[in-house]
Amino acid sequence: MISQQDCRQRDADDPLRTLRDLFDLPPGVIYLDGNSLGALPRAVPARVAHVVAQQWGQDLIKSWNSAGWFALPRRVGDRIAPLIGAGGGEVVATDTTSINLYKVLSAALNIAAQDAPGRRTIVSERSNFPTDLYIAEALCRERGCTLKLIEPHEVAASLTPDVAVLMLTHVNYRTGAMHDMAAVTAAAHAAGALVVWDLCHSAGAVPVDLSGAQADFAVGCGYKYLNGGPGAPAFVWVHPRHVARCWQPLAGWWGHAQPFAFTPDYQPAMDITRYQCGTQPIVSLSALDCALDVFTAADQLGGMAALRAKSLALTDLFIDAVEALCPGAFTLVTPREHARRGSQVCLTPTAQLPAGSAYAIVQALIARGVIGDFRAGDAQQPDILRFGFTPLYLSFDNVLGAAQALAEVVRTREYAQARFHHKQAVT
Amino acid sequence: MISQQDCRQRDADDPLRTLRDLFDLPPGVIYLDGNSLGALPRAVPARVAHVVAQQWGQDLIKSWNSAGWFALPRRVGDRIAPLIGAGGGEVVATDTTSINLYKVLSAALNIAAQDAPGRRTIVSERSNFPTDLYIAEALCRERGCTLKLIEPHEVAASLTPDVAVLMLTHVNYRTGAMHDMAAVTAAAHAAGALVVWDLCHSAGAVPVDLSGAQADFAVGCGYKYLNGGPGAPAFVWVHPRHVARCWQPLAGWWGHAQPFAFTPDYQPAMDITRYQCGTQPIVSLSALDCALDVFTAADQLGGMAALRAKSLALTDLFIDAVEALCPGAFTLVTPREHARRGSQVCLTPTAQLPAGSAYAIVQALIARGVIGDFRAGDAQQPDILRFGFTPLYLSFDNVLGAAQALAEVVRTREYAQARFHHKQAVT
Repeated sequence: MISQQDCRQRDADDPLRTLRDLFDLPPGVIYLDGNSLGALPRAVPARVAHVVAQQWGQDLIKSWNSAGWFALPRRVGDRIAPLIGAGGGEVVATDTTSINLYKVLSAALNIAAQDAPGRRTIVSERSNFPTDLYIAEALCRERGCTLKLIEPHEVAASLTPDVAVLMLTHVNYRTGAMHDMAAVTAAAHAAGALVVWDLCHSAGAVPVDLSGAQADFAVGCGYKYLNGGPGAPAFVWVHPRHVARCWQPLAGWWGHAQPFAFTPDYQPAMDITRYQCGTQPIVSLSALDCALDVFTAADQLGGMAALRAKSLALTDLFIDAVEALCPGAFTLVTPREHARRGSQVCLTPTAQLPAGSAYAIVQALIARGVIGDFRAGDAQQPDILRFGFTPLYLSFDNVLGAAQALAEVVRTREYAQARFHHKQAVT
Repeated sequence: MISQQDCRQRDADDPLRTLRDLFDLPPGVIYLDGNSLGALPRAVPARVAHVVAQQWGQDLIKSWNSAGWFALPRRVGDRIAPLIGAGGGEVVATDTTSINLYKVLSAALNIAAQDAPGRRTIVSERSNFPTDLYIAEALCRERGCTLKLIEPHEVAASLTPDVAVLMLTHVNYRTGAMHDMAAVTAAAHAAGALVVWDLCHSAGAVPVDLSGAQADFAVGCGYKYLNGGPGAPAFVWVHPRHVARCWQPLAGWWGHAQPFAFTPDYQPAMDITRYQCGTQPIVSLSALDCALDVFTAADQLGGMAALRAKSLALTDLFIDAVEALCPGAFTLVTPREHARRGSQVCLTPTAQLPAGSAYAIVQALIARGVIGDFRAGDAQQPDILRFGFTPLYLSFDNVLGAAQALAEVVRTREYAQARFHHKQAVT
């Protein structure tokens, strides 16, 4: 079992150790919830203050051009592109993940309707993040299509001749299980289906190669591992072979080929710009832009490959330490195999612990300054404790500290205290 | 003709004069573009700094509950509601105007399909803001419906038995002409059509009474007269008689009856919450929330009625002064009649001025610190100089100064200088 001293040595040897200084984290906190809301990059407050006081307050309307506001969704998209294996001019940062998913799912159904009119089913996983399923459900309802929900191991078998679109989240939000994007995409294509990837728990966390996988469509989140701030705009990518093939339904003026011609009829731009819709929240989008400077700094230290290596080392350490310090108390929900693991570790309490204790354990950890989160189970899946490991700002010492805190909570039965037993909404 | 001294006396007597102190405007600028991007309320920088540094940076994920982030769209909606004649719990501040329009137009078509299946036409004005037309065009294309574009005087005649929805902007973005909401809504209802109102140039600028007019749906903008900052979230209102009748298509998790139950199937909330979709840009939305404090202050001084009275006095003064100081140089595009005028004044150059001079005149005014904007004409409509008058922060002295600057630009022919002749994108 690794010691605190070993951890500190690993931190001293960590080529990425300087990145932590780019973040402002509260003292005494071990933050394992960057997969829900990324921490604040230190440079963001000054950038936001400048956008508000100078660009908006002093330069007013002319900032649409002089401060580059109008081009910001494309500029931020170009900065996200290398993190997901996309090319320049192929990504825009805009709207929300749910809305971007509606755009690409609609477009995918339209393309399927042209190429294979009999295919009218969308397949997804029952354990996908619910908003993805809701968007698909509403779209199917409107189009008279079918949404088929499957378990993760049923993907290959699900690709029947009626399937138009396979819609998957690359890294599952609950379990942290990761799909093999290239293999799944190839299988879907071989079966005649298009693939929409949700990268909410991937972008900035694990290497992604959309172009290499020949994927069709992707969306993702700006406020998790990209650290863009609460509700930061999301992103959308469409493979260049599809981008000009059809309109997306949210055909607002920012997607027009010439938005300032103010023509009464819509002429979509010929590139990813057509996936824009209306005027974007510039203050929030500027925070995301600034947050991406952290990845520019990481590029000098090995980029996503180095971040992935550290992420796996951190999650390996956490798994080992929990198993050593809390023997038999938890079952690992996240795959142990590196190739199938995202950047998080999820645990579910075993019968050693009282039924329903997962929520209270997470609360007791938060009270100790170790912030993870709880996800309730249902008939299909257990309650889980969810811990996200952001290699940008977490140290090996943090990880061991978190496992030790968890062991202490179990040992002292802190979770049995009444104050930890109110369920609250957490995102 | 009113003198500078008269103006200063009117300013001294103005019951709303203290509101200007709530804004941070650059020195020497007369800002007549608040109908495009509202000026910065003085309290916003500190609020935004607090949201970023404390709520995000220090309190992290728990701010979704403790700082009220999750409820913010509804809370801000409740603050906008009294400005547009809506009730509590009937408005959410979310997404963009274009996206909200897509939601309500889709819902209106769905309701029409239930109540009057033969009605499959959307009517709007050719001179409506283009994004409204684009959204309607794309939706009609997808649903096999028809978009019929008319001129403003053709509204009554357009309400034929095929019309499902009349979609109008209350105050036209180009001309400043205002519809009689109650009369038009009643006429549409009498003809069996639903009405969608776009309030982008109305909310915070003119009194609006959606409930009194028995309107069906409305959307509007947070960054014009509400001063929420560049790209601030928009708002959406649905009359309670319609709100639970059908799904809106962007059925994301924030519209779910129990978003944190994380169920795989969608169950829409029974109120306006179902018009929410995904996670909102909290930093931008917080700026809008803070900006609305200005209207709380205005409420103590007479509220929208007082703002409207001042707005009409400002636009009357501007029209009179331009006609006195630049005789014959411009034609008034905005209706002279109070009941038909929004909070802006638009002019088009007469034949006294060189053809195509409107853009250059606006640029020459900007060089003098008087910021309005230019909107290009086409076969149907002339080039215009557009001036927005925000009674919250404009004085009578400002207005006379703007008219004097315009007269000087005309007298000195500054607009003939080459540097004013590059057309640029302006929003």
